[in-house]
Amino acid sequence: MTETDTDIERDVDEAQTAALELAKRSDEERSAALREIADAIEARADEILEANEKDVAEGEKLLEQGEYTQALVDRLKLSESKIESIAEMVRSVADQDDPLGKTLSARELDEDLELYKVAVPIGVVGAVFESRPDALVQIAALGLKSGNAVILKGGSEALHSNRILFEIIEDATADVPDGWAQHVEAREDVDRLLEMDDSIDLLMPRGSSEFVSYIQDNTSIPVLGHTEGVCHVYVDDQADRSMAEEIAYDAKVQYPAVCNAVETLLVHEAVAEEFLPAIADRYETADVEMRGDERTREIVDVEAATDADWDTEYGDLIVSIRVVDSLEAAIDHVTTHGSKHTESIVTEDADRASTFMRSIDSASVFHNASTRFADGYRFGLGAEVGISTGKIHARGPVGLEGLTTYKYHLEGDGHLVATYAGEDAAPFVHEDFDGEWSPGRLSDE
Amino acid sequence: MTETDTDIERDVDEAQTAALELAKRSDEERSAALREIADAIEARADEILEANEKDVAEGEKLLEQGEYTQALVDRLKLSESKIESIAEMVRSVADQDDPLGKTLSARELDEDLELYKVAVPIGVVGAVFESRPDALVQIAALGLKSGNAVILKGGSEALHSNRILFEIIEDATADVPDGWAQHVEAREDVDRLLEMDDSIDLLMPRGSSEFVSYIQDNTSIPVLGHTEGVCHVYVDDQADRSMAEEIAYDAKVQYPAVCNAVETLLVHEAVAEEFLPAIADRYETADVEMRGDERTREIVDVEAATDADWDTEYGDLIVSIRVVDSLEAAIDHVTTHGSKHTESIVTEDADRASTFMRSIDSASVFHNASTRFADGYRFGLGAEVGISTGKIHARGPVGLEGLTTYKYHLEGDGHLVATYAGEDAAPFVHEDFDGEWSPGRLSDE
Repeated sequence: MTETDTDIERDVDEAQTAALELAKRSDEERSAALREIADAIEARADEILEANEKDVAEGEKLLEQGEYTQALVDRLKLSESKIESIAEMVRSVADQDDPLGKTLSARELDEDLELYKVAVPIGVVGAVFESRPDALVQIAALGLKSGNAVILKGGSEALHSNRILFEIIEDATADVPDGWAQHVEAREDVDRLLEMDDSIDLLMPRGSSEFVSYIQDNTSIPVLGHTEGVCHVYVDDQADRSMAEEIAYDAKVQYPAVCNAVETLLVHEAVAEEFLPAIADRYETADVEMRGDERTREIVDVEAATDADWDTEYGDLIVSIRVVDSLEAAIDHVTTHGSKHTESIVTEDADRASTFMRSIDSASVFHNASTRFADGYRFGLGAEVGISTGKIHARGPVGLEGLTTYKYHLEGDGHLVATYAGEDAAPFVHEDFDGEWSPGRLSDE
Repeated sequence: MTETDTDIERDVDEAQTAALELAKRSDEERSAALREIADAIEARADEILEANEKDVAEGEKLLEQGEYTQALVDRLKLSESKIESIAEMVRSVADQDDPLGKTLSARELDEDLELYKVAVPIGVVGAVFESRPDALVQIAALGLKSGNAVILKGGSEALHSNRILFEIIEDATADVPDGWAQHVEAREDVDRLLEMDDSIDLLMPRGSSEFVSYIQDNTSIPVLGHTEGVCHVYVDDQADRSMAEEIAYDAKVQYPAVCNAVETLLVHEAVAEEFLPAIADRYETADVEMRGDERTREIVDVEAATDADWDTEYGDLIVSIRVVDSLEAAIDHVTTHGSKHTESIVTEDADRASTFMRSIDSASVFHNASTRFADGYRFGLGAEVGISTGKIHARGPVGLEGLTTYKYHLEGDGHLVATYAGEDAAPFVHEDFDGEWSPGRLSDE
């Protein structure tokens, strides 16, 4: 079922209108609606499982034909316990602090002329994602908590699951302004969405790096997301060797499929002879395939790395290894080959750590810790919207705050700019104070 | 002189390399360089005036041929006092607080595992601007203060002035990493810049709304700017009538050419009969052309407004006037016709002010104050980078803070994610504390 241009335009129009209403709802109302969603997901688990079985059956057919991978089918599959954990995730979003309404700063411009910077929702957020049906619920939940209307476009492989989940969300949020969530089904409609820069304020694509690149290259709507995670661990000559071994192991092996896993290990030449055989032993026990540069291969017996390896996100039990002359050579390698995601230095020398962390232009730079910590939950941001490798608006792991922006509220008492211009211009006070914006506070005094 | 693709790519490469170096320079170094620029501008005023005369002469030729306006030629023209004020502007940027290096938040994730969010420059900022030669200096100064490399593309009408100003800036900043500022001269090179989304982090176009729209529509680089300022003043039925008159007058007449001047006056029907004749008298004394809807024209004798008027930024002594039934009708009008820039309500009723301010999705919403206050200087942001009507990253008047982003620094002591995963997962502490990141602080303890 393809929507016509008019249908999808009407959907997005509805979302825009709903967003303005939703922005005025209290945290109690938004969180209560989220709890309704969680309850409804549990109550209607059978319907969800039934729809999901259709998607999984189709996925398995495509798997037999060699068009799908087992990993894709696995990601698609829901179970009772999975549904339970989706409901719990929605409740945990409801429990988060309200990201809206906070006064971020207050400044006296002049007597009775007060400027407040207030946190508000962004407006209409479009999410385009692949496979996992829990993504639809997660994005809808984060959107609702932060007062944003959401346009949801899931992958066709999860169509039946997404449909029932969306229906449940819609039914459960009858008290939320109508049209706050919209479900878009056809692939062709994505290209229409990409053009709607007047009505969609932010796009959040999730999926393969090709997919995210496609979105970025074909819209003038701001995009929050990341294409690649080519992360590095640098083992300095001043590293604690056993700490370096543990970190290099954890960063690769603990969960290799994710974007914050290490892909390239850089080792200072002064410690390479001691460190490389030790880490190679550890990696071998975990079946990690190693690909080294020439100097690495003089020390340990591993495959040769090609130029392409230094720029590759394996997302798998594969690691490339390079011996470097110096801290500066490590920094240069990361600057040339990194994806500005997450890098870690292992060293006991504070100055060298500082040089590394200040020189590298990545969203997250770590000292003596695994790259795998780059994650919204571990950072304590609550639920994670995604990880951004762009530098504008939000960077690194993004929490609910990334779905908010601000607005200036100025409270005056008939103030005119003419008073502050020309020869007898009055001066401004420009003094910050602690205060919350409250409606028309000056007229209440 | 058109640069070849290779030239401009080399320029931007150089800027990227310089940006990484510049990010590490202290505020003292950056501000000292700014003072050198200011001194050099004063010392070489004659050279600037000589170059500027060429631009003005060419502009006057085009004015005679009817291709330029007098306003354009006026904006182009420099004088000794203008040059003096440019130098002063650079010194005032130098005097601003350092926007970099601040720890924006600090959080204990677990014992000896500390996360810091640190303010850093964005990287490489491209500015494309028209006519006024002081724009080149202003953008270079703001870029340098905030540790960003800048790519500067001015309008061809100011080419000679821009060339000498750029030369002075380059000569005066020999201590700043080479290549931190780049001057691009050819119009064709703009289209090359728009494609360089791998190396340019932010674009700041300044100029006509067509010009800004062109930039927005033809790049996937994030853009900070605004196309239009269709600002509103709403005179509520609970307004203090004389305050409403003063605000409506100031917002239109004090400086009509700017984006924060009011374009449409909305008047509650209950006060229209009393208010409209009074404001019409005031506007007439200032030669303001009024265009009203039918209900307005029943009360005062003004031209008829067409549908197009409600969406027009006049930038001139013209105002459209509409009588509305209610507060809600005023909000609807602004939502339909506004450009999310700045709106003001005049009312003595705090609840009605609150409804207006919370319902309207504009960067700045004012209560009992002129729309003309929407400005970086008046808001106390120091120098102004520009005004943004987008909702991502920075909104409304943007100061130096808008040229910064943040980066996460994590200080650990060999921490592994495996410790916090699986059945025996250790819990996180996730407690915020007051603290500044300092290099390798844990190893110093």
